Amino acid sequence: MAQRLIYGIHPVRQILLARAGTVERVYLQSDIGDERQARLADALSRAARVMRVSADELRNLTGTAKHQGVAALLAEAGPLSEGAARDLLAGIDQPLVLALDGVQDPRNFGACLRTADAAGVDLVVVARHRNVDITPVVSKVAAGAAEAQAIVQVSNLVRFLETLKSQGLWLVGTDDAADASLYDVDLTTGIALVVGAEGEGLRHLTSERCDHRVRLPMHGSVSSLNVAVATGICLYECLRQRSVATRLPGTRPVR
Amino acid sequence: MAQRLIYGIHPVRQILLARAGTVERVYLQSDIGDERQARLADALSRAARVMRVSADELRNLTGTAKHQGVAALLAEAGPLSEGAARDLLAGIDQPLVLALDGVQDPRNFGACLRTADAAGVDLVVVARHRNVDITPVVSKVAAGAAEAQAIVQVSNLVRFLETLKSQGLWLVGTDDAADASLYDVDLTTGIALVVGAEGEGLRHLTSERCDHRVRLPMHGSVSSLNVAVATGICLYECLRQRSVATRLPGTRPVR
Repeated sequence: MAQRLIYGIHPVRQILLARAGTVERVYLQSDIGDERQARLADALSRAARVMRVSADELRNLTGTAKHQGVAALLAEAGPLSEGAARDLLAGIDQPLVLALDGVQDPRNFGACLRTADAAGVDLVVVARHRNVDITPVVSKVAAGAAEAQAIVQVSNLVRFLETLKSQGLWLVGTDDAADASLYDVDLTTGIALVVGAEGEGLRHLTSERCDHRVRLPMHGSVSSLNVAVATGICLYECLRQRSVATRLPGTRPVR
Repeated sequence: MAQRLIYGIHPVRQILLARAGTVERVYLQSDIGDERQARLADALSRAARVMRVSADELRNLTGTAKHQGVAALLAEAGPLSEGAARDLLAGIDQPLVLALDGVQDPRNFGACLRTADAAGVDLVVVARHRNVDITPVVSKVAAGAAEAQAIVQVSNLVRFLETLKSQGLWLVGTDDAADASLYDVDLTTGIALVVGAEGEGLRHLTSERCDHRVRLPMHGSVSSLNVAVATGICLYECLRQRSVATRLPGTRPVR
């Protein structure tokens, strides 16, 4: 597989924590600043080779000015093993996980990956035999997220969700028929958002494992939203609640 | 054009307020209940013919149990005139409008319409010569919203946005480079959310008309979200803020 360059603090940190062995080189801006350096500190210790470069060199390498002072050259890309995915989450405080229970349309899957990456999701879990594979269409629609985003394809989604629960995550499933609204649930703890297939929604077996089932308010004639749109609304509500909890110390509920 | 049946309180109310002349018949559940009847009251007075039917008959007509006690048979469907669109908004307290400044991909446009309908948007405004037309692909992806949602195609978007301003709406434009986050802006007043084209974003002329420019937080390597996903996140944040404002009297800011 060809080498790939990814950039940005979150993606580089994530790949170093999850798959340091696949990172051939990290390019770090010489004057990256203390705050950004601190956000990368735990991950940089795992990098075999760090090259100090100027902001201009990083811009030339990445083709953008939005590199946030860091890029990583990967020897290869590909999904994580289940063990590596669990190790990744173990190192993250209050992780945010997206689990897809059978998204079949490549454009929807790509848009879900793009949205997960934008929202800073730590791991995307897909049911191997129920979900479309990472095809070129998925990669294109994902706009780079299919490579940068940590992904694990699991053979038994329900069993993997159980291990996430044992790691302290709460499972929040989306369900049009749920009693609770998305906005009624505390999303500031470690969360795995579990989203079902287009049209069908969550399987019963998956749904009954969830700690919370939530619905989005529907005010029109359509009965559901596109799966990538619904995923985006849910993930950004997680971000909003976490941002409010951080701004107001003491408001974060104890589990 | 063939007859069409739409159902649900919001869509039927909306079409009666905007295009009562195109409604051939309204089917109203005999025991619809006071609260639902009240939500339809202003609109039902415009219906030429109202037939009382049972819940079962409505379910047979609409093919769903989610009809909310009302359906309308339309003689034809199609976009509103600019005058009819303004009249529609004049009759609504704190309307929610979605304006699309050049969405070109039919699937994105369809998903925007579906999302707008689900969020209870009162009117979708599209720039006639910059936006893809309502093709069969758009209709299919919109899952019924292309028919049920009030839409106006305007020849001069900036001029139409000015008239919305003069009707008391605030214009909120999405812009990746904006200083303000979506979550920092009061969205409980009458709002027109203005969304730009895929890749390009808002045109300068459109952007400078906006009262607020807002960005979504981006935490990954991708630089933007799919336009329908971003639209969904923004519209549902409007709903969330409005719901909070309604639940806590006195917290709604005075304009």
